[in-house]
Amino acid sequence: MTDEQRIEEAVEEIDELAAVTRERDEYLDALQRLKAEFDNYRKRVARDQQELAARAHERLVRELVPVLDDLERALVAASEHEEAKLEEGVRLVHRSLADLLVREGLAEVETVGKFDPHTQEALLSQPSDEEEGTVIEVLQKGYRLGDRVLRPARVVISAGSDG
Amino acid sequence: MTDEQRIEEAVEEIDELAAVTRERDEYLDALQRLKAEFDNYRKRVARDQQELAARAHERLVRELVPVLDDLERALVAASEHEEAKLEEGVRLVHRSLADLLVREGLAEVETVGKFDPHTQEALLSQPSDEEEGTVIEVLQKGYRLGDRVLRPARVVISAGSDG
Repeated sequence: MTDEQRIEEAVEEIDELAAVTRERDEYLDALQRLKAEFDNYRKRVARDQQELAARAHERLVRELVPVLDDLERALVAASEHEEAKLEEGVRLVHRSLADLLVREGLAEVETVGKFDPHTQEALLSQPSDEEEGTVIEVLQKGYRLGDRVLRPARVVISAGSDG
Repeated sequence: MTDEQRIEEAVEEIDELAAVTRERDEYLDALQRLKAEFDNYRKRVARDQQELAARAHERLVRELVPVLDDLERALVAASEHEEAKLEEGVRLVHRSLADLLVREGLAEVETVGKFDPHTQEALLSQPSDEEEGTVIEVLQKGYRLGDRVLRPARVVISAGSDG
C-alpha cells in the first residue's frame, strides 16, 4: 500500500468515525429518553395502582355502613326486648352482608361428593355407609374469592363401612 | 503536516473508530433490550390491572367471613328461640364489624357543638334553648373515611329560643 492509498483510506475512516459517532450519540440520547419514559411510566403505574386499591377499598367500606346501621337498629330492638324485630333485623343484616359479599365475588366452597383437598380440610374421618372419602358433614363453611380459597371448608369424611 | 504525521493521526482515528463503534453497538443493544423490557412491563401491567382490582379488597372480604359466620350462628339461635344467645350474637357481630371498620379507617362524624355543613346535613331546625345553629339531635350517624365524608350525619339544629 502506498502512502497515498493509506491517506485515502484514513480519510474514509475519519468520515466513518463522524457517522458512527453521530449514531452513537443518537442511540445514547434515545436510550436516555426511553429510560426516563420508563421511569415515569413505572411511577405512574405505582400511583395508579395505589389509588385503584384505595378506591376499591372505599367502595366496600361505604357499602358496609348501612349494614352497621341495620345492626345498630337490631341492637336497639334487643335492648327494648322486641324479639321479633331483633330477629327480623338479624335476618336483614345477614342478607345484606351475604349479598354484598357475593357481589364482591365471594362464593361458598362446594361440599357435595368426594373430598377435595384443594378446597376442603378433613377434620375427622368416620365409618359411614357413604363411599370412602366422601364428605358426610360440613363443620364450617369454606369460601372462595374468584380462584382463591379464602378458607377451606372443614368437613368430616367417610371412612367407609366397617363391613 | 508530514505524511508520517498524517498516518499516525489516521491510526489514532482508526482506534477511536473501533472504540466508538463498540460504544454505538452497546448503546443500540441496551436500547433494544430496554424497549423489549418496557413492552413486557406494559403488557404485564395491563394483565395485572384486573387481578389487582380483584385483590385490592380481598383482605377486607377475608375479614368479613367470620362476621358472616357469627351472623349465621345468631340466626341459628334465633331459629331455636334462644333469645339471650341471639342478643349476645348480635352484640358480637356489631362489635366485630365496628372494630373492623375502625381498623379500615372508618370514623364517626362528630356532632357535638355547632352545625358543620361539610360533615353534617340539617334535616330540621327546631326552636330550642341551645344556641342557634347548634346540633340538638342526631337522626342518623355520619361517617368519614380518612379525609372523605362517606355519609354526612343527619341532624336537627336549633333555631334558637322564640323569646
